Amino acid sequence: MTRQGVQGDTDEEISMSKHKYAIGLDFGTESGRAVLVDVTDGREVATAVHLYGDGVIDEGLPGSGVELPHDFALQNPADYIEVLRVTIPAVLQEGGVEAEDVIGLGTDFTACTMLPIDATGTPLCQQPEWRGNPYAWVKIWKHHAAQPEANRLNEIAEARGETWLQRYGGKISSEWLFPKIWETLNQAPEVYQAADRFIEAADWIVLQMTGQERRNSCTAGYKAIWHKRDGYPGDGFFAALDPRLEHVVDDKLSRQIYPLGDRAGGLTAAMAELTGLQPGTAVSIGNVDAHVSVPAATVVEPGRMVIIMGTSNCHMVLGTEEQTVPGMCGVVEDGIIAGFHGYEAGQSCVGDHFAWFVKNCAPAEYRDEAKERGIDLHRLLEEKAGLQEPGEHGLLALDWWNGNRSVLVDVDLTGMLLGATLATKAEDIYRALIEATAYGTRMIIDTFEANGVAVDEIVACGGLPERNKLLMQIYADVTGREIRVSASQQTPALGSAMFGAVAAGREAGGYGSIVEAARHMARLKDEVYRPVARHKAGYDEVYAEYERLHDYFGRGGNDAMKRLKALRARVQAGS
Amino acid sequence: MTRQGVQGDTDEEISMSKHKYAIGLDFGTESGRAVLVDVTDGREVATAVHLYGDGVIDEGLPGSGVELPHDFALQNPADYIEVLRVTIPAVLQEGGVEAEDVIGLGTDFTACTMLPIDATGTPLCQQPEWRGNPYAWVKIWKHHAAQPEANRLNEIAEARGETWLQRYGGKISSEWLFPKIWETLNQAPEVYQAADRFIEAADWIVLQMTGQERRNSCTAGYKAIWHKRDGYPGDGFFAALDPRLEHVVDDKLSRQIYPLGDRAGGLTAAMAELTGLQPGTAVSIGNVDAHVSVPAATVVEPGRMVIIMGTSNCHMVLGTEEQTVPGMCGVVEDGIIAGFHGYEAGQSCVGDHFAWFVKNCAPAEYRDEAKERGIDLHRLLEEKAGLQEPGEHGLLALDWWNGNRSVLVDVDLTGMLLGATLATKAEDIYRALIEATAYGTRMIIDTFEANGVAVDEIVACGGLPERNKLLMQIYADVTGREIRVSASQQTPALGSAMFGAVAAGREAGGYGSIVEAARHMARLKDEVYRPVARHKAGYDEVYAEYERLHDYFGRGGNDAMKRLKALRARVQAGS
Repeated sequence: MTRQGVQGDTDEEISMSKHKYAIGLDFGTESGRAVLVDVTDGREVATAVHLYGDGVIDEGLPGSGVELPHDFALQNPADYIEVLRVTIPAVLQEGGVEAEDVIGLGTDFTACTMLPIDATGTPLCQQPEWRGNPYAWVKIWKHHAAQPEANRLNEIAEARGETWLQRYGGKISSEWLFPKIWETLNQAPEVYQAADRFIEAADWIVLQMTGQERRNSCTAGYKAIWHKRDGYPGDGFFAALDPRLEHVVDDKLSRQIYPLGDRAGGLTAAMAELTGLQPGTAVSIGNVDAHVSVPAATVVEPGRMVIIMGTSNCHMVLGTEEQTVPGMCGVVEDGIIAGFHGYEAGQSCVGDHFAWFVKNCAPAEYRDEAKERGIDLHRLLEEKAGLQEPGEHGLLALDWWNGNRSVLVDVDLTGMLLGATLATKAEDIYRALIEATAYGTRMIIDTFEANGVAVDEIVACGGLPERNKLLMQIYADVTGREIRVSASQQTPALGSAMFGAVAAGREAGGYGSIVEAARHMARLKDEVYRPVARHKAGYDEVYAEYERLHDYFGRGGNDAMKRLKALRARVQAGS
Repeated sequence: MTRQGVQGDTDEEISMSKHKYAIGLDFGTESGRAVLVDVTDGREVATAVHLYGDGVIDEGLPGSGVELPHDFALQNPADYIEVLRVTIPAVLQEGGVEAEDVIGLGTDFTACTMLPIDATGTPLCQQPEWRGNPYAWVKIWKHHAAQPEANRLNEIAEARGETWLQRYGGKISSEWLFPKIWETLNQAPEVYQAADRFIEAADWIVLQMTGQERRNSCTAGYKAIWHKRDGYPGDGFFAALDPRLEHVVDDKLSRQIYPLGDRAGGLTAAMAELTGLQPGTAVSIGNVDAHVSVPAATVVEPGRMVIIMGTSNCHMVLGTEEQTVPGMCGVVEDGIIAGFHGYEAGQSCVGDHFAWFVKNCAPAEYRDEAKERGIDLHRLLEEKAGLQEPGEHGLLALDWWNGNRSVLVDVDLTGMLLGATLATKAEDIYRALIEATAYGTRMIIDTFEANGVAVDEIVACGGLPERNKLLMQIYADVTGREIRVSASQQTPALGSAMFGAVAAGREAGGYGSIVEAARHMARLKDEVYRPVARHKAGYDEVYAEYERLHDYFGRGGNDAMKRLKALRARVQAGS
């Protein structure tokens, strides 16, 4: 799409024509939100948030009180419908917008968040006979009870030389679809049996809204080992896992996958009644919160990496070819923007580092000082740390407090801090932790570039860029790249609304493609974090040390972290 | 000496005979103390402490206000005389003891603490013409301005293949005598010229008390590269440093060195008047605070290591042969107990670690909890850390926050912590730091034993053993050795009093040797810290990791610590 495609949209014409709107629905871990967006310019007109009534279910099942095993994390799908019922009318009212002016809806979800349904699409957990069975409910992304299945799956895949493994950094996560399905088969074969299909919640909500099952290419690709050209792994692989799984794809999933940007269908009459929207309103196929943020951060072409920065970092970048990049989370054709290969990488601990530090290591007198000045401890530490030059504190950390996702894909790695002296202060360590996460991002970028995926500049979104300007400058200095920040503070919902506008299409007042939608609806803030040459030079020196230690501890030079972790586990188990 | 040597001293006889006393004088960094001790059983009858009027002089000279360069640490020798004038009468009075019943005095000092004197023994700084010159004052042990001279001395010694270097772990410290003399020659040649001699304060105080210059074998051996059989380094070596130093030993020192335990002389009439003691009272030759503690901790034979545990650790053990042990601080014949080779090793940061941690890293809520319970933060952290089993926190630290003395002898090493996760708590790190210092001690012990110096058990003294029982148990578990604790809380002063009793001799009611004195006057507490087999096994696993990282970072596998420290120095210097 080129600028010509929308050449009629001058400001004057827009101001005179009647505005059209799209609604983005973002289903998170604790709540769902709707954002009503002006299709013309992406202005966020109204927002409504609904906390899930049952929240994250990790102790006992609602109603029956059935106790949950360790590592369980479930949700109630009825809460998703409640989000629609509550938030859509709320934004219409708040925005003073008529239903007829809402031309489309888009949705995004956490993933892999999956559930078993019957032939009509009804979740098993909504049927009285299955309500007391934990495996009949929605397993959300952070349900970690399928780790044994994931380990076994990886062993078998590696032993068989399955080539798709390299598309996922050599490891399938226990958070993903097949370990979760296999766990259900192992622990509750009756649920597996009773399930007509397993489905991502991202696709289930679309099925509920439109009556159409249109599985999306993003979750299929990133979470279910699907490939646009090769499809799923072969039945032989699944049979090798467990003979009962041989036909799992045909029996319990679907081979029909739709690219992002497609229209899934129109809103059903029942859903129209529930939400106050008009029947037939266009609904896009499902998407994932992280991935849908990419076009909302203006990125619809290769070379610009989007980093969603929060408790963890998620890195996404587009490419025109499928490259094998070690340690990424996945590469999926049509997985982010149709027509491109979407690459995803991640760091498992970013904001969590700083939160850990403030809770466990910030000295009492700093708390007093922060309190006296009426600022929070993060801000105080940022202020003190901000007075330093790169290299001045003499510290270096490995940012592995929660393991390493990219590029080592190893949950058994742990954190390290080196260079401490009796003169080391809390703000020095705080800064070293920020820098460590920046080095981790540089490692990811360098790995992408070394494997043919260009990263020329960075766009940041998420909670951290808003809160921590020091961190943003350090990332620019360490990576040597300019960083811009998404203008929206609810980037995923904006992205979903953009896809809603694409589902509606140009005739209805929407757009012909997400590229076109991005050009009109997505924006960046004016501020740019630019690398400072002097800082970059200092960080280059420290990064060389980071690289050396990264490889020493992370690539088998010294497995001390794993041995200490194993000893710890043995001691805690009392053996 | 055998038990027969003192067979007349049954309890009844003692109680009927008139008790005899000795005074131990301990000259520390901030103050001097006198302890009046019953010669019969070592009972500490009275104590008096006098804070030095001028304290540690590190900013400006008293009187003139002349500003001092960075890294200077001086004292005023008049303060030492004040200690005698104030504390000796005080302990006599407090103890209700007559001067005639005080049979001997012993002294110990920090070292190398040295000063230039004229031919009469008067310090140059007490002469009006030199009073405004910093180099005319006492340079105390932690005066660090002679680092350039120490570096140069080590280079030259190494280049010349000086064999004595290996007696000092391959490095002469900037704290020791020749770097300090050379510094004076370089910076203030007029002071060097004017000085009739340079002398350890340990020997100067004895010279003042007795009128006799009797340089002791302890400071000569450990701080001035003197050897009982080989003497000082040859004049050729000193000429290689600086032609003006060629005859430094004969011109500015003395080749006459006396073994510990000798009588230096009797108290002069003037000193008798100053102190209220009788003229002619026996005075032992000088000693060093750490070394004098060894017999006071009951150790007068090989196989039992004394560890003085405080802000740093000092390890001392006796041997019958001179062995080359890598990384020790020194081996000196007659250096601790006459007739044995005294070995010294050290860790530069022990209590300082914990103080650093509590000040910089203990979270605010722990301070609140400690305050509420009326205990100090160290105690609270010890309590929480004490609930754990070895290996349970999953952490490992290298105890190099202040560099490493033994066995790597490298001030440019820095601290490291490995194994942190989001579940790591402050008490975990606190315990890991304690353990790290224990691993450092085990490394020293293992190195001694691997080189023919036996360490069968440990006796601890100093401030830490009193305060931290968890630390003591961890040391026992990590080293696999029983640890006993000196009964005295002022071990150095007790040791000096013991040497005073030896100087007095058996005829005067004292002892024939320090071995005999130790049998009567030195005691251990009843409590014994015994290694727990289960703990030892866990620590053996972690120690294997410590050893590997110790060698990797400490022996050239990866010089990251040094490079980061160098970068830090460059950044701080603004270059």
